[in-house]
Formats: sequence, C-alpha cells, structure tokens
Amino acid sequence: MDNSFRTPAPEHFTAAEILGMETALSAARQGVRSSNPLVGAVIIDADGTFLAIGYHKGAGTPHAEADVINRLLGTGVKRDLSAATLIVTLEPCSHVGRTGPCTQAIIDAGIGNVVYALPDPHIPAAGGAQILHNEGINVRMGLMAAEAEDLNRRWFVAVRENRPFITARLAQTVDGRIAAVDGTSQWITSQESRQDSHELRARVDAIVVGTGTVMADNPRLTARAADGSDAEHQPLRVVMGKREIPADAAVKGVSGTPSSPDRLGDEDFLALRTHDPAAVVRELHGRGVGHLMIEGGAMINAAFLAQGLVDELVVYLAPTLLGSGIPALTDLGIGTLEQAQRWEWDATTTGPVEILGPDLKLTLMPAKAHAREQRPDAHGAGEQGS
Amino acid sequence: MDNSFRTPAPEHFTAAEILGMETALSAARQGVRSSNPLVGAVIIDADGTFLAIGYHKGAGTPHAEADVINRLLGTGVKRDLSAATLIVTLEPCSHVGRTGPCTQAIIDAGIGNVVYALPDPHIPAAGGAQILHNEGINVRMGLMAAEAEDLNRRWFVAVRENRPFITARLAQTVDGRIAAVDGTSQWITSQESRQDSHELRARVDAIVVGTGTVMADNPRLTARAADGSDAEHQPLRVVMGKREIPADAAVKGVSGTPSSPDRLGDEDFLALRTHDPAAVVRELHGRGVGHLMIEGGAMINAAFLAQGLVDELVVYLAPTLLGSGIPALTDLGIGTLEQAQRWEWDATTTGPVEILGPDLKLTLMPAKAHAREQRPDAHGAGEQGS
Repeated sequence: MDNSFRTPAPEHFTAAEILGMETALSAARQGVRSSNPLVGAVIIDADGTFLAIGYHKGAGTPHAEADVINRLLGTGVKRDLSAATLIVTLEPCSHVGRTGPCTQAIIDAGIGNVVYALPDPHIPAAGGAQILHNEGINVRMGLMAAEAEDLNRRWFVAVRENRPFITARLAQTVDGRIAAVDGTSQWITSQESRQDSHELRARVDAIVVGTGTVMADNPRLTARAADGSDAEHQPLRVVMGKREIPADAAVKGVSGTPSSPDRLGDEDFLALRTHDPAAVVRELHGRGVGHLMIEGGAMINAAFLAQGLVDELVVYLAPTLLGSGIPALTDLGIGTLEQAQRWEWDATTTGPVEILGPDLKLTLMPAKAHAREQRPDAHGAGEQGS
Repeated sequence: MDNSFRTPAPEHFTAAEILGMETALSAARQGVRSSNPLVGAVIIDADGTFLAIGYHKGAGTPHAEADVINRLLGTGVKRDLSAATLIVTLEPCSHVGRTGPCTQAIIDAGIGNVVYALPDPHIPAAGGAQILHNEGINVRMGLMAAEAEDLNRRWFVAVRENRPFITARLAQTVDGRIAAVDGTSQWITSQESRQDSHELRARVDAIVVGTGTVMADNPRLTARAADGSDAEHQPLRVVMGKREIPADAAVKGVSGTPSSPDRLGDEDFLALRTHDPAAVVRELHGRGVGHLMIEGGAMINAAFLAQGLVDELVVYLAPTLLGSGIPALTDLGIGTLEQAQRWEWDATTTGPVEILGPDLKLTLMPAKAHAREQRPDAHGAGEQGS
C-alpha cells in the first residue's frame, strides 16, 4: 500500500503552501477550545491564489474543511478544483460524528490536492489521508507539523490519555481569594463574568463541583442566558465527594435537558462518591463526555491541577482585594518555587486577556515543559474530601 | 480683587475649547503617575485650530504647559499668540520646583487666553490663575472639572492628606502567592518584570520594605539597569519594623546616590523602628519624599492597604500556580465579601494590562467609592511586625 503521504517532506512544499498553512494556523486560533481540536483550512489555486479560508468554531459546528469548502462553494457555484490545494492543520477526518466526514466533503468538491500538518491521533477519525489517497487525490503531510502540534498540544494529551479535554474555571480576587473569611463568595466577580461563565457551561458536556461547593453555595450548575432562562445546551451536572448531597439541592433539580442525550445518557445529574479526579474523568469519559469543566471549590480545583488533569485554565479576575478568606487553590503538593506549575497565556480566540465589565478574564494552558511529572504523592488535596 | 476666573461657567466654553480639553485629558493619560499629577495641555488658535498638544511625562520632566509651549515655539519661531488659548487640565503652577513656573512660560509666550479644569490644591503651587489674571490674561476655570478630578483623584487624596503618592508593588503567581511554603521566592516573575520593577524604582523617591523582607531576601533595593549597573536616580531605601537589621544587610550598602540630595537629605538608607504605616508616611513626607513605593512583604503590603495608604497597585502576575506558600497579602481586616477593597484597572500610560515577557503587569487604582472608610480597627496587620 502506498502511504508516501505519511512521510513528512518539507522540501516538497511551495511558498504558497507554506503561506497557506500559516494562514490556516492563524484561522484555527479563532476557534474556541472544546472537545475538538482547533483546526484551520485554506484553499489555494494552482497559481497560489487564496480562494478561501475557514476554521472550526468549536464542538457541534462544521469542521474546518467543511467550513472552507462551504465558504468557497456555499453559493452553489460549480468550479473545477482539480488543480486546487486544500491546506489543513490536521488530517481530515473520515468518521461520521455530529457532522459528516471531511474526506467526503473534499472528494465531493473535486479538490485535487491536500496538504496537512499532522495525522489525526483520534482512533475513530484516523485514516482520512488514506481514503483521499485511494480516491486519487494527491496528499502530502508534515508542513509546519510542530506549530500545529503546539496549537493543540493539550488536546493531543487528552486524546492520548483517553479522557475529556478539561477546563478549570476560577473566579477570584487579584490576591487569589474565592471567598471571604465568613465564606461569602456571591459575587466575587461581575455580572459580565458570570454571564461569560454561563456561555462556557453551555459549551461543555459536563461540569464537576465538590460536595463542599454544593453545601456552601447550592448552585444549580445550569447554563443560563442573560435573562435567566436555560440555555439550549445543558451540561451534565456532576458532584464528586463522599458527603451526602441534600435531597433538595438545587443541582438535583430538573432544569433544561442535555442537548446530546445520545452521548450523555438520559440523566442530567450525577453524584460520584469519590475524591479521585482520575476516577471521575474515567467515569465521565465512559459516558461520552468530551469536554469537562471543573468549577471548584478550592480542593477540587487543586486535586485536578495536582494530577495534571487541567488542559485550560480560565480565571475571572475581579479588581478587588480580600487579604484573607478562602484561597482559589489548596495544596498542589509543591514544596519549593522550582516545582511551581508553569502555565502560558493562551492567545487563541479572545486572546489571553479579555475585559469583561470591571473584571479581566485570563486564559492559560499548561506550559510546554509542564510537569505532568508531578510528584506521584502530590495528590493529597484529593484525599481531604470536599 | 477680581477672581471671576475661579467661578466655573461651562456655558462660556466653545466647542473648540471642549474638544481641546478632551484632547488635553487624553494627552495627560500618556504620562506616568508620580509625585506630580497627570496633566495635559493644548493650544488652539482663535478659530479653533489645534496648534500643539503636550503633556507631563512624570516627575522631573517639563510640566504640560511648558511641554506644549516648547512643542509650538521650541524651534525658536516667534508668533503672536495673543488670540490663542492654552487649555490645560490643572491650574498652571506659579512655584519654582525642578522646572520653572508655568505661569512665567505662559506670560513669556504671550498667550492671551487660558482655560483650565481645576484649581491646583497644592499650596506651594496655587495662585497661578491669579498671577495670569493680573498680567491681563483672560483666564477661565471649570471646563470638564469632574473628568480632570477623576484622572488624578488619588493624587488629590495624597495632597489633601499631606503625604506622598504611594505605589504598592506585588510580584505573584496567578493564585496570589509570593513565595513557596519553604520561603523560596526568587524568582516568581520574569527577568522582564524585574527590569520593569527597576524602572519603577528609578522613578520613585523612596522604597519601603519590612525587616522580614530584609531577613528573607536581603535585597539591595537599588534601581538597576538591564546590565546590572546602578540607574542614575536612586530612591531612598527604607526598612520599617522593630527587628534588628544585620550589619551586613545589602540594603545598607552604599550604592548609587540619591538624585535629589536637596530633597532627600544626604542619606540613601533609613531604618524606621515602627510598624505603623502612617508614621512611616509622615516621616518620609517630612523628608521631601513625593512618591513612595511599598515592596513588601505581605504584612507590610497589607498594613498600607488596610489604612487606605495605597494610591496605585502594580501587580506582576506570573503564569504559575503554587497552591500553597506565602500569600501576597495578609489580613486586611475584612470579615465578609461586602467589605472587599474595590479597585479599578488604571487605563493610563501602558494601559491596565501590559505583557512583560511571560508575565502580565496589571495596574490598578482604588475605585471611586473606595473605602478609605475601612473599619478603624482594621489596622491589625500593621501590629504584627514584619
């Protein structure tokens, strides 16, 4: 079987293709992180002219390949694309998910050449390049592979570890407090930040909080619109910990319906009687959760962070000082500064810093050299209950 | 004595003057906060044409009025400005400081009309409008006074309280830690942030740390250039607290000289055996310190903050997490969320958020409704020593 397209051969790429891939990577960064990777795509003509630029906007929306083809052909115009090249930051998928397979869209459009940066590591999606090759399309791989890998490096980690992509959300003061000494925490951040939080909830498949948060704040954990009504998509609401959840806890209330009942089962609330983040992640992955959000409290946040189980950190930073009270995180098992967890500002989508009313929203991802290699005994936070 | 120029009369301002004042306020925001207020100035012609825009760049540089006149006449061109109007956000000063009085510069330039927003509350500088009026210049006050007051509201507070303008500087992790549990703190932030810190030091008249910081970090507290050499201007180095400072402490070492010996006296190091921020501020004001920077540790920061003795907060935020260790602040005497200290991002100069290598630099000022009215017993932090 000829699989030459699996051999990176950078010298075979033209200047137009390189510029195309740079553009596709920039376009990819316009998307939002989700259970799917950020992917961008460009179609160029035989002479290098840019015909269209597209990207994936997040789970449930068209893939980048479909987006760029739609932009070029969406008006129904037929054109001969046999000499054109589709340049995409990840191998086109061949699986049928919420959207049709990208390989079929490329074949249907009659595109003669495909250049992609990286193979898709996700088993159900892999094999797209082979399918295109078998259809007589000229397929080449490896252009700017390092940049493409870097863009989605935490998504690759999640796929490799066979678990959801995990976002942790903090809402804190400048001095890192999530509640005052008397436990009051509503509201540290502004209406604008809370609304943004609801939009985040509406994008994820599940939310996890600890029993302590249920006791202290009695949150509903639903995704709500600015007018207080339930958003169309509701995440699975998960409470972890060994304490009993009161029968009348708001989190148990039926409110909204999961938008993907086929993936999440017919429940929208789940209690997991464990303090172990890995067990929670396993259980939820088994239930089809692709994007999980951790919403605290401090010990739950720390437990996931200490185990390297956070791919994206969203911090709503209120311009206030408390000086005392509950810190955003408890012990991460870090004894000295050298062991500090290193993160990077995530420059995708809205940029690393967004202004939300009086607050700042900071988005970070673990730094490249991030210590997934935490000390194996650094999981204490998870043992202390919630 | 005719002092009609002291009566706000907004209806007497032209559209060109209003636009001029808006522009002067924008220009003022380009300056850096210091012992002097942010001031901007514009000169318009009789027909409303803008002739020049100027602003004050910070202590030791020309005042806004001198700057705008220099920009217009600096090339030595003589022109008749008797029909022109100088629009400035604060009453022109009449005192001789490090720069000559602005009133004289205005008179010498032959400017026929002056519009200013607010009277100068600073006793040695007041009276400028009267001097200009006595010289036959048409002087009017009160245009956009509220905006001008807001821009420098903390400077007005400092003048009113007869004390220096006070900047506090924090260098912390995202979760608000300034050292790990074992006390290691060098370096939480990046080389770029530390260099910016040195530039801040070179702009202030004095730096205060607690004896605890001297023991833990043995800092020199000098302002240094990127190559490690001493900056031309060195702040007075002040250590507060009751513990004995080791004879060989780096902070005692002679390094650099105060750039303003006439204002600071002939010492460049000072030990103040007190835990009371107000006493430190009084002492330093008496020694001619106009701009003071607080550099920690946590208890010293908290002691000044709890007493409302911080006008500007600079936070260097490293993209790291510690989860434990020493928090940026100790107790502010806040018992519940409603008492949280409210701040605002300061949009002057480099903006509220600046990227410094891997770090963010956040600049804040107390919110307008800021509780200088902290509970009177909220000063405990200052009692705990350092």
